[in-house]
Amino acid sequence: MDERKLLELIEGKKYAQIKNELSEMNEVDVAELLDPLDAHLTLLIFRMLPKDLAVEVFAHFSTEQQLGIINSITDKEVEYIVDELFFDDMIDLIEEMPANIVKKILKSAKEEERKLINQFLKYPVDSAGSIMTIEYVELRKGLTVKEALTHIKEIGLNKETVYTCYVTDQKRTLEGFVSLRTLVTSDEDKIIEDIMEDEVIKVYTHDDQESVANVFIKYGFLALPVVDNENRLTGIITVDDIMDIMEQEATEDFQIMAAMSPSEEAYLDAGVMTLAKNRLPWLLILMISATFTGRIMGKFEDVLSSIVVLSTFIPMLMDTGGNSGSQSSTLIIRGLATGEITTHDWWKVLWKELRISAIVGVVLAVINFLRIILLEKVEMKVALTVSLTVVITVIASKIVGGILPLIAKKLKLDPAIMAGPLITTIVDALALIVYFSIAKSLLGI
Amino acid sequence: MDERKLLELIEGKKYAQIKNELSEMNEVDVAELLDPLDAHLTLLIFRMLPKDLAVEVFAHFSTEQQLGIINSITDKEVEYIVDELFFDDMIDLIEEMPANIVKKILKSAKEEERKLINQFLKYPVDSAGSIMTIEYVELRKGLTVKEALTHIKEIGLNKETVYTCYVTDQKRTLEGFVSLRTLVTSDEDKIIEDIMEDEVIKVYTHDDQESVANVFIKYGFLALPVVDNENRLTGIITVDDIMDIMEQEATEDFQIMAAMSPSEEAYLDAGVMTLAKNRLPWLLILMISATFTGRIMGKFEDVLSSIVVLSTFIPMLMDTGGNSGSQSSTLIIRGLATGEITTHDWWKVLWKELRISAIVGVVLAVINFLRIILLEKVEMKVALTVSLTVVITVIASKIVGGILPLIAKKLKLDPAIMAGPLITTIVDALALIVYFSIAKSLLGI
Repeated sequence: MDERKLLELIEGKKYAQIKNELSEMNEVDVAELLDPLDAHLTLLIFRMLPKDLAVEVFAHFSTEQQLGIINSITDKEVEYIVDELFFDDMIDLIEEMPANIVKKILKSAKEEERKLINQFLKYPVDSAGSIMTIEYVELRKGLTVKEALTHIKEIGLNKETVYTCYVTDQKRTLEGFVSLRTLVTSDEDKIIEDIMEDEVIKVYTHDDQESVANVFIKYGFLALPVVDNENRLTGIITVDDIMDIMEQEATEDFQIMAAMSPSEEAYLDAGVMTLAKNRLPWLLILMISATFTGRIMGKFEDVLSSIVVLSTFIPMLMDTGGNSGSQSSTLIIRGLATGEITTHDWWKVLWKELRISAIVGVVLAVINFLRIILLEKVEMKVALTVSLTVVITVIASKIVGGILPLIAKKLKLDPAIMAGPLITTIVDALALIVYFSIAKSLLGI
Repeated sequence: MDERKLLELIEGKKYAQIKNELSEMNEVDVAELLDPLDAHLTLLIFRMLPKDLAVEVFAHFSTEQQLGIINSITDKEVEYIVDELFFDDMIDLIEEMPANIVKKILKSAKEEERKLINQFLKYPVDSAGSIMTIEYVELRKGLTVKEALTHIKEIGLNKETVYTCYVTDQKRTLEGFVSLRTLVTSDEDKIIEDIMEDEVIKVYTHDDQESVANVFIKYGFLALPVVDNENRLTGIITVDDIMDIMEQEATEDFQIMAAMSPSEEAYLDAGVMTLAKNRLPWLLILMISATFTGRIMGKFEDVLSSIVVLSTFIPMLMDTGGNSGSQSSTLIIRGLATGEITTHDWWKVLWKELRISAIVGVVLAVINFLRIILLEKVEMKVALTVSLTVVITVIASKIVGGILPLIAKKLKLDPAIMAGPLITTIVDALALIVYFSIAKSLLGI
């Protein structure tokens, strides 16, 4: 069903057909279909849906639609949603809603749950604790496979995953895990303790979500247990949430690396003012910084006015320096994000960039020298000045580009800010100083 | 166990202990631990491992270690590995190995499997067909839940996933799917047809892996069926492989956007010559392109030499233009990659960028005007020239940055090439032409 068909059915008041067709669809598609409708229509259709589906669709609505629905439905309906939502979706919801709605939601939650919500809201943003959920299957190690499967049959439908079950002792200390695959392929009377894996790969509540994602990628797990400092199981994280986080973290890095404030809002949905506000601060900082480069040119005005042709090579030198630096910084920033590179590798990075930049710099300089000599009518000495500057600039840029992200990481800043735009600004100044210094000594100005 | 301890144990010839400790570890960690060892030692320890673990570790080795091992082991051992490897890992292996090793591998495969391998090798690189595997659980719709579970118990250990089972008819047409969760929580005598989902979300063998990843992210599935044009089930893709692909696709985009040839090799592992070769072509292209910007300066030599101070604003104008353009192009490239933006949205993008750039351009120009007037001793008219250029450059840059990725996509090029570096080069020329034209008319040169 597409939007046009839905609107036709609504107009024709064919509600039974709408209900039937929507019930067959995946909840994500239903949410996508209803999201653009106005609040009144959305509510109308939302109330037609089977209750289970309705809650799932609700979890996939945009914040705006969620707000509209909670504002319009009865307390009893809110209670049902609060009761049925997965805990991590509930936390997400509460974090997005305005204070009065949060009150309404908390009022509908049971005492026990309210306590838990308050505890979860305290985990730092982007930590494992802030993205975990509490709907997991916990098993005792003395159970038989048959007992475990009966237990899962009873409670499994309300758990976010049943595919990995966690084995704990009375103090909730994590002792092992067993997959549903192992359970269904084992003999019924085997004991959990004998078939469980006791080397558990786990994360801590305060771990950063990016490093959690890297653990998922490394091992290919479907879920990971989250423990506190006493190794007590406090929640789990499932792979579907991690995929969202991977996409979101990569998008954030792209934004920061292009000198923007990161934003989770989709481009087409975001307002013009919001987008402008995300872009202005860095443009302003970089614009002001670039004026220093201009000052350098001002200082060497004598050089520029005595040999005007020198200025025509400036764009090429600045761009080549900026691009060389961006290449290096991008690789290092990405390596830090995926966990391949750590700050301990600074010496390896430095040595590698030094050799690469020497090769790249010399090749570019030679080609540049030949091009100038053959195609432009300038003195040999000018060609030499330009080409020497290329070599030195490329080497300096690649070292700056390779090392600055590592320094940022060490200072607990986001390495992504040390990307193209900032590197370019720094390298521009470097390139000009090198250029004019060589020009002065080689051309005797 | 870490590398030092392993080497100590090897030196002490404590092989039983090595075997015991490694057997407890996750296969990914064992592979990581053995990977840096020399071929001889790796083989020694590899042969100690329990056979099942050995195959899993093998699948996680680097290409180099895999090559070393296949070269050194007996035909019978190769046969065992070939037999036990998951089909998608086997295809990956064959794609990486030199021809003589591929021969050795194919010789060890059974006739049936060899045919299948040849068929799979024909799928385009980065297509769903090239990443799918054939180890899935297929059920007939007439089975009862009990029969299905018995079937899974028999064959489940050799399947990549048992958590989603696919229901097909005699012609292998995909009719539905049922999750293991549904199976274990349903009554034993229910019929599969009655509990299966018949609205199946699926991908086609020729779909691009990036769009497959977007389907996974959207729905949060653990596996997706892959069908051919006749809707016959030909394989499945599991979420663990998709996470690798997501990371790899994002890394590739980062590399292309920073003007490098994309490479799957890790930075620290890659050779200096390889890295230099990845970086040189684009630097060269951009360096040559930037000389056109220089030509423009040459053309306006009269303007520059009559008012030398004008040249000191050039770095700031070029950088601001480049950064403005990069911001827009990055958002559009990322939106295209995640599927949020399509080429049909060009009008929305254009209209949005036009409004954003007007706001951003005017703010930057005003601040710039005040800064020049207050801090630098230049004529009002020069300040006006510079500030007007800022407005026009920012607007032009953002429109170029917003639209070029869409044009690239339309032309079936990778939109990522239309990122910062290329946009900067284009925008530099634009900025200078605007600057000198305004200067000429405003300053009457």
